[in-house]
Amino acid sequence: MREKTLTREYLFRGRIINLRIDRVELPDGREASREVVEHPGAVGIVALTAKGEVVLIKQYRQATGEEMWEIPAGKLEAREDPRECAVRELAEETGYTANHWEKMTSFYTSPGFANEILHLYLARGLEAGEQSLDPDEAICTYLLPLPRALEMIKRGEIRDAKTIVGLLLAARSEDGGMGEG
Amino acid sequence: MREKTLTREYLFRGRIINLRIDRVELPDGREASREVVEHPGAVGIVALTAKGEVVLIKQYRQATGEEMWEIPAGKLEAREDPRECAVRELAEETGYTANHWEKMTSFYTSPGFANEILHLYLARGLEAGEQSLDPDEAICTYLLPLPRALEMIKRGEIRDAKTIVGLLLAARSEDGGMGEG
Repeated sequence: MREKTLTREYLFRGRIINLRIDRVELPDGREASREVVEHPGAVGIVALTAKGEVVLIKQYRQATGEEMWEIPAGKLEAREDPRECAVRELAEETGYTANHWEKMTSFYTSPGFANEILHLYLARGLEAGEQSLDPDEAICTYLLPLPRALEMIKRGEIRDAKTIVGLLLAARSEDGGMGEG
Repeated sequence: MREKTLTREYLFRGRIINLRIDRVELPDGREASREVVEHPGAVGIVALTAKGEVVLIKQYRQATGEEMWEIPAGKLEAREDPRECAVRELAEETGYTANHWEKMTSFYTSPGFANEILHLYLARGLEAGEQSLDPDEAICTYLLPLPRALEMIKRGEIRDAKTIVGLLLAARSEDGGMGEG
């Protein structure tokens, strides 16, 4: 079922994403073109306090035109290890450090047109500290009980893929349910 | 926390996505630029048989360079109602029709750079029929018990955001757990 790449043309190389058009040969020999957004990959962190609260942030997103609830997250720097990126982004965006880190999963956010891969971590043993945001970031940090965050998914108030995946996986892990499905 | 859009420049208008650069004014008065991918939005369908199996498809994705496990899905046509799109895509990609449809949630796949919104539906009361694929699609359909699909998420074999969100929400709904968090 693989497609063979015939040509690859870059239309844009940006600060965060690149855009290319691939001409491909389909398994049956016909040709098609594919619009592909290249992204360096990113991390997201479900940070849980000892009381079972989760660290959520609220920030405005120009792409969606909305303030959104999200878990702390950020994109990988060149050759950066995902776990180091997660430690860095949690501290920069929220001020928190954690003494226990666990990889949850990695997934593609939108494989139909983008290669962005998202690495999710669970962080525990939190200690509060000071934010150090990038010059173009404005982020508010909140602590919410995990059950309340799950309610917000149900009510459509949390509308970000990595946040929904992270919270649902953390809830399954807390319930001991992920092992048995 | 809103950003004010100063200018908007389109660099690409494609078959599926557009790319634009927005110049924005930050809340503190400084300026920044945002790379934004416009997408028409899409639907995904968790289709469950009476025996508790879920309909999954496997298809090659040029963006990720991998064959991927996904729920049936597709992008919205111009002015198409999401539910009608879901009915259409389930039939086209898998041949199945369903007599009970339920909206699960809508979410943004990657709000940092894209406005793609994904509408998720739960479909039950399935009847098998014939696929009718687009000329550039090659899709294999599988029936898997839901617990096995959840295991595949845990093992990193299912790596697509909409599929992970859809299966985890369906599992919570089956467990009756979504209401109480």
